[in-house]
Amino acid sequence: MMQAFFQRWWRDQSELVQDTVKKLVSSGQLELINGGMCMHDEAATHYIDMIDQTTLGHRFIKQEFGQTPRIGWQIDPFGHSAVQAYLLGAEVGFDSLFFGRIDYQDRAKRKDEKSLEFLWQGSKTFGSSAQARLYYFPCLCFNNGTSIFAGAFPEGYGSPDNFYFEVNDDSPIVQDDINLFDYNVQDRVDEFVAVALSQGNITRTDHIMWTMGTDFKYQYAHTWFRQMDKLIHYVNKDGRVNALYSTPSIYTDVKHATKERWPVKTEDFFPYADRANAYWTGYFTSRPAIKRYVRMMSSYYLAARQLEFFRGRSNLRPNTDTLADALAITQHHDAVSGTEKQHVANDYAKRLSIGYVECPLLNISYCPPSEVDLSSGKSLVIAVYNSLGWKREDVVRIPVTTKSVAVRDSSGKEIESQLLPLVNASIGIRNYYVKAYLGKSPSNEPKYWLVFLASVPPLGFSTYIVSGTKTTVTSSTISTAFTPKEGVNGTIVIGQGNLKLVYAVDEGMLTQYINKRSSVKASIEQSYNFYSGNDGSDKDPQASGAYIFRPNGTYPIKSEGQVPLTVFRGPVVDEIHQQITPWIYQVTRVYKAKEHADIEFTVGPIPVDDGIGKEVATQITTTMKTNKTFYTDSNGRDFIKRIRDFRTDWDLQVNQPVAGNYYPINLGIYMEDNLTELSVLVDRSVGGSSIVDGQIELMLHRRLLFDDSRGVDESLNETVCVDENCQGLTIQGNFYLRIDPLGEGAKWRRSFGQEIYSPFLLAFTEQVKEILEVAYFIDIVDLLPQEIIVSPLQDGWTSSHQSKFSGMAPSYSLPDNVAMLTLQELEDGKVLLRLAHLYEIGEDKDLSITASVELQKLFAHKKISKVTEMNLSANQGRAEMERKRLVWTVEGAPREEAKAVRGGSIDPSKLVVELGPMEIRTFIVDFLS
Amino acid sequence: MMQAFFQRWWRDQSELVQDTVKKLVSSGQLELINGGMCMHDEAATHYIDMIDQTTLGHRFIKQEFGQTPRIGWQIDPFGHSAVQAYLLGAEVGFDSLFFGRIDYQDRAKRKDEKSLEFLWQGSKTFGSSAQARLYYFPCLCFNNGTSIFAGAFPEGYGSPDNFYFEVNDDSPIVQDDINLFDYNVQDRVDEFVAVALSQGNITRTDHIMWTMGTDFKYQYAHTWFRQMDKLIHYVNKDGRVNALYSTPSIYTDVKHATKERWPVKTEDFFPYADRANAYWTGYFTSRPAIKRYVRMMSSYYLAARQLEFFRGRSNLRPNTDTLADALAITQHHDAVSGTEKQHVANDYAKRLSIGYVECPLLNISYCPPSEVDLSSGKSLVIAVYNSLGWKREDVVRIPVTTKSVAVRDSSGKEIESQLLPLVNASIGIRNYYVKAYLGKSPSNEPKYWLVFLASVPPLGFSTYIVSGTKTTVTSSTISTAFTPKEGVNGTIVIGQGNLKLVYAVDEGMLTQYINKRSSVKASIEQSYNFYSGNDGSDKDPQASGAYIFRPNGTYPIKSEGQVPLTVFRGPVVDEIHQQITPWIYQVTRVYKAKEHADIEFTVGPIPVDDGIGKEVATQITTTMKTNKTFYTDSNGRDFIKRIRDFRTDWDLQVNQPVAGNYYPINLGIYMEDNLTELSVLVDRSVGGSSIVDGQIELMLHRRLLFDDSRGVDESLNETVCVDENCQGLTIQGNFYLRIDPLGEGAKWRRSFGQEIYSPFLLAFTEQVKEILEVAYFIDIVDLLPQEIIVSPLQDGWTSSHQSKFSGMAPSYSLPDNVAMLTLQELEDGKVLLRLAHLYEIGEDKDLSITASVELQKLFAHKKISKVTEMNLSANQGRAEMERKRLVWTVEGAPREEAKAVRGGSIDPSKLVVELGPMEIRTFIVDFLS
Repeated sequence: MMQAFFQRWWRDQSELVQDTVKKLVSSGQLELINGGMCMHDEAATHYIDMIDQTTLGHRFIKQEFGQTPRIGWQIDPFGHSAVQAYLLGAEVGFDSLFFGRIDYQDRAKRKDEKSLEFLWQGSKTFGSSAQARLYYFPCLCFNNGTSIFAGAFPEGYGSPDNFYFEVNDDSPIVQDDINLFDYNVQDRVDEFVAVALSQGNITRTDHIMWTMGTDFKYQYAHTWFRQMDKLIHYVNKDGRVNALYSTPSIYTDVKHATKERWPVKTEDFFPYADRANAYWTGYFTSRPAIKRYVRMMSSYYLAARQLEFFRGRSNLRPNTDTLADALAITQHHDAVSGTEKQHVANDYAKRLSIGYVECPLLNISYCPPSEVDLSSGKSLVIAVYNSLGWKREDVVRIPVTTKSVAVRDSSGKEIESQLLPLVNASIGIRNYYVKAYLGKSPSNEPKYWLVFLASVPPLGFSTYIVSGTKTTVTSSTISTAFTPKEGVNGTIVIGQGNLKLVYAVDEGMLTQYINKRSSVKASIEQSYNFYSGNDGSDKDPQASGAYIFRPNGTYPIKSEGQVPLTVFRGPVVDEIHQQITPWIYQVTRVYKAKEHADIEFTVGPIPVDDGIGKEVATQITTTMKTNKTFYTDSNGRDFIKRIRDFRTDWDLQVNQPVAGNYYPINLGIYMEDNLTELSVLVDRSVGGSSIVDGQIELMLHRRLLFDDSRGVDESLNETVCVDENCQGLTIQGNFYLRIDPLGEGAKWRRSFGQEIYSPFLLAFTEQVKEILEVAYFIDIVDLLPQEIIVSPLQDGWTSSHQSKFSGMAPSYSLPDNVAMLTLQELEDGKVLLRLAHLYEIGEDKDLSITASVELQKLFAHKKISKVTEMNLSANQGRAEMERKRLVWTVEGAPREEAKAVRGGSIDPSKLVVELGPMEIRTFIVDFLS
Repeated sequence: MMQAFFQRWWRDQSELVQDTVKKLVSSGQLELINGGMCMHDEAATHYIDMIDQTTLGHRFIKQEFGQTPRIGWQIDPFGHSAVQAYLLGAEVGFDSLFFGRIDYQDRAKRKDEKSLEFLWQGSKTFGSSAQARLYYFPCLCFNNGTSIFAGAFPEGYGSPDNFYFEVNDDSPIVQDDINLFDYNVQDRVDEFVAVALSQGNITRTDHIMWTMGTDFKYQYAHTWFRQMDKLIHYVNKDGRVNALYSTPSIYTDVKHATKERWPVKTEDFFPYADRANAYWTGYFTSRPAIKRYVRMMSSYYLAARQLEFFRGRSNLRPNTDTLADALAITQHHDAVSGTEKQHVANDYAKRLSIGYVECPLLNISYCPPSEVDLSSGKSLVIAVYNSLGWKREDVVRIPVTTKSVAVRDSSGKEIESQLLPLVNASIGIRNYYVKAYLGKSPSNEPKYWLVFLASVPPLGFSTYIVSGTKTTVTSSTISTAFTPKEGVNGTIVIGQGNLKLVYAVDEGMLTQYINKRSSVKASIEQSYNFYSGNDGSDKDPQASGAYIFRPNGTYPIKSEGQVPLTVFRGPVVDEIHQQITPWIYQVTRVYKAKEHADIEFTVGPIPVDDGIGKEVATQITTTMKTNKTFYTDSNGRDFIKRIRDFRTDWDLQVNQPVAGNYYPINLGIYMEDNLTELSVLVDRSVGGSSIVDGQIELMLHRRLLFDDSRGVDESLNETVCVDENCQGLTIQGNFYLRIDPLGEGAKWRRSFGQEIYSPFLLAFTEQVKEILEVAYFIDIVDLLPQEIIVSPLQDGWTSSHQSKFSGMAPSYSLPDNVAMLTLQELEDGKVLLRLAHLYEIGEDKDLSITASVELQKLFAHKKISKVTEMNLSANQGRAEMERKRLVWTVEGAPREEAKAVRGGSIDPSKLVVELGPMEIRTFIVDFLS
């Protein structure tokens, strides 16, 4: 399942073995399917990571075996996403997609209706009848390039019961030595035939698939093949059924050849329950720290490949390959999902950490390069890199040790900045975690966060210089601080720009959201609760654990006594600090230049001294009439409509009114009424829902004391230790809240969503030194090609270094509805480029239209010689993929099928790429050298 | 370890695989060692079984591979016997013998003295200096054909710690991919070298052996060879030691080539303790039922092969091969040892039961063929077969339904017989066990045991006819019965012949043993006790279990109230019946024609309701001054002197004064003082000792409630079930007691020992029927060749059938000191013959002398054309074996070594075989056809 292991094995084999394997692959006896570096998760993964890891795996298979995998094989993930079906399935060029886990109620109905196999059309945009036209009518055939033939297995993904043949398995071997007591040929044949006929009864066509094996099997393949040889021999001799060795491709082809008609499935397969009280919705949030780490690295990997391209890739220097491998395997369905054992989670984190160069603990105010002593006249140089294809303004935030600082831009002009005190809660976490992670306490203690607004060109960087000021008069503004006295009533309003948040002082609570510009004004509250995790002692024994969310009670988290509410105000940002409990601290920020609230939570250590595991959620509560309806994204890409206590495909029997309504969130969740829409965007994969109308809920952290019996065999009880003194892990993170007039929310969700995914990348150095001794900086700036250094400025470091740069043509930027997913120099010097339209059909009145990108303008410093469009994973030409695509027949009456709006082919003389809504196009670009 | 499994695998392989294996064997890369059907136990096995199973395995290896194994490989058995060393080692032609388990104290001393490898001279007779002569002096070399180079491993029989490479083992693999986190070549090499040097420090010569693997390993050999390849590569590159793939033969040859001098070891390695409180002496008795069953089958197999030879072997009829296989594997060190799981024990019993034809439940008075209704004038014909080479008189004992019976011999002459009532205790057991074993209750209920003295020629049979008598006056004598009244004093004497046993009526106890002929008169008592099995909760946690005997208390078993003592007297036998407790019943028999007491015990179900496991022993207590000394046999062959709390090889530290003095008994145990010797012979393998002077103790049955943590992972708690109602298993058996003047006991031990091993084989039919419908009879009589039917008598059945037969020449019999161990027709029509001298040097003043056998007289009906002397396992010529024998050098001063007295070569014209004391000679005999 994990190509990373296959590759490790492969490198270790003799040429003889390699040749044998190649022959088996070439003959089709051994088929490489799925073909990513791992079988990625489908809930906690971002679509960019899914594409990257699949591309990486497919490249290896193409190089070593000359093969393009035909089959999607997601047999173990715990629910299946729409993006997997249409994007990582059809757009990759897969002919079918198979998986093992769907909801037990769904499975039962599909068995009844023989609909475990179907055509899955996962994309609303590409499948929408809004732009319908008759396609291949009247043959009822279709494949518009976004649907895929899919099969859910009748039971799990292993062999049928009693057909397991590992050395120590209990299934009876086929004993065909008549002299032995356990001779059992007829028994085994009868059982084989019975199981086959039973499966035949719930399957369309005469063909069924048995997946012989399961986890941890084939450690000695001979024990299996020996028995399967015998079974095939004796079963075929018996003659009631015909058994043969096959592969998913052969199976797909024979299914296709039957010309059977298949039902159509839309949307996705979330949430997944394998029985009544076992919803696998806990893992949407499990291990929130590694989930955030993966997202940070994903962003970093995107940016680092851009920089690598600008400088020119070399295998002689450290390059992005190590990170590519680490990030790819971390997409595994027992990695980013949070469902691995602790020591495995540690290994993933270790691999990710290798090659990462930014201040990794900046979020908890630890960043030695920024904490230099500026009092002696030194200056701190900050290069701010923007990996987005748009010019961008965003707030930079670094810890500093003195309040006597000023910030200048690359032109030498002083810009507005603000100092916020480092509060005690932050210092405590900083000191503890630095000790925990580095093994020593930080030597410095910064006193302030310095914040300022940086402006950076697309695919480029700007330089800012922070200097100590010699007088006691500081140029940076120190925030005003205010803590209401106990017993005082009234309200506090924060926000220097269009957005205002109103707080009730007596309760210490958010009460109103007001946007002056859009005239949105809404009552709003925000609160925390926790679910007590079931300990597995019920009559139906099922504990809440790494996989499964099974609450057995809901408890609001109320402050003990008055909420300590403190306000900091300044020219860049206003902040509200709330110590909600000793283990929940929250900062709400409203930036003058932004129209959303940025909520930073610090949750943990979750107390479990009472022997009760807790799953901590936050609720945003409004008076909106949302009629059970909300929207969550699919792998950060499409939004899917969710209706509480409802499934499109069957009549839902509700056993778990909370856990059964949880969905995975990678980009965001929103709800709407007839006036407004409220969106919440997230900084990592989390679980969320709308359990009551007008409310959105996110699960932020989980600490549980029992194993949920799905294989991890540990309780999900993450701890952090200093000197063998351990405490529950504290999670710090952000979510972002905005209310828009109805129909206007998508713009923010899509464009700010990109900013969350791709924050500024910072690098630091000091100005007084000639030699760049601070490694953090080199890694970005030294990646730049020397010949494109431009316009040295007068001042110190900037006089000998480039201080501002964009990879694109001057003043060019991508359209607002397009993002660059991949810019990567390959080993052969060609460049892999992926462009994505960010909007679904009908999502935004202005932006859900075809966009155009002028390719040559993306590459200001190179000359394009050739552009080849590829399939999504770039292992075959797009045209070739489309030519091979199988066409399937739909059951039921003739129906109109959408023809997706897609960009046309590229005119080599113009090099303009068109993208229809939701379209992602992948190119190999050759340059003149 | 189990060739039976290897053969099963072998039969299943393609010619290609078989050829590959043959090539590997032929080149020496794969060496077949030990080569019996299994790695037999060395405590609970009889030497005849050890020879048979080794012969069977060696025959297969010779046939398939043309190989004669060179190495004894007894790595797992729990202690090692003298017979294994000299008989199954040197006499088979092995060049060395290796094993894993010796006493922990012994091992420690041998490490200190570098004496884990040595020359083992297991035979007192062949190694005795009584007939010493200088042998190969002055080179100090010797090998008189009975000693063997032997090695005990430094620790267990597996790889060194941390060098296990099964898929799921914890030992680190050799990771030589420098790119991986776990790269560890130098670490692994250092550890390898350290372990090797440490072993080198306790080993003579520069060569050490690592046994790579252990139980349940190599299920996928590749994982091992891959790591061993790497270890050998990197260790040799390192250069501090040299590592290579080797075999025990290569190791033995290189040890021999060093010309090192080795210490000499005599006697054996019993008992075995792997730590202070863990004496593996429980298994000497564990599962007494299967131990008895094995012995019965061993005897039956010996007789059945004789009959098969007389009739002529055919593969078209059922033959003895199935029993040979079953009996062979039952010698495994986790089979007859009683240390297997219950379901495995059941499987062994099932295999043994196939092909066995005698009334298997005769011991509990169930034998339908003998229970026919004789009142209607029918007669019962009994053929009594004697597999010994001597004419023999012994008592036949069968259940009958009526008292109106008479017994006639084959001449028609009525002979003396006696009827003994079937007591209630017997009927209870009969009914319960018949139901348990057959699934239905017996339809008949016999009322009497009919006993009479049968006289049978050597290797032959006699026929007896039991008839109903028409009048109420019976010809068979009904025993007189007498039960003393309560409160009566005085004595009871039983015994119609030379032997008298005297009982005290008030206590119900044996008090005196008197032999009129030999004038032996001795005070004697017999009692029962039990040891409470340690439950493993001690500070040193070690439970008593299938392997280990660890008593934590000794409790005499006293009758509840008066001992119910009943006497039956008659012309053939006198019996004393004692119900000692509700779960111990004992019958003591004194036959008029015999001079020993025959004690039949019925023990069980052992009560464990008190939560205490119990190990039941019986003690025979005299006033003899035995000075801590007693003698026990080695595998039923040589007797070895045992001294309580003493070991010849080291200063014993006594921790377990009972368990640490237990020894395995297969033939018997005896003790002596300056006037008399007291011998006890047994009917199966048991553990026994002399815990106090003048006393002999046998452990008869064990029922335990805890596992002893040596791998069986079950408590030794045998039960028997009727309709799912289970109770502890009841054991019925016999031991035999005799006291002789000093120096005169051996004759009885040796000759009566043969009679115990080879009881009469009975077959039954009815006289009125023309067609022999009773299968029991056919199996013996129909095996006889038709042409040797002689002298039909007048009367009914005997008029048309042979009624008396001997395979030997008329009036010939073997000398008193010689037994025929094997008479077997092989597949090629040749005959395998084994003759054994029964006496050790000096054991008996008359019989410890060279004996002569006239071969042609053994075969009355065939003409010998050729006799070839073979090694013990008959896979090579004796001369060839002797020619190849390695000569080793002894450490220390020049010493005189015994030259064994052995018979000379055979003059083909005379065909007389001479046998020196303890000599066993093996021949292939060709006949003129």
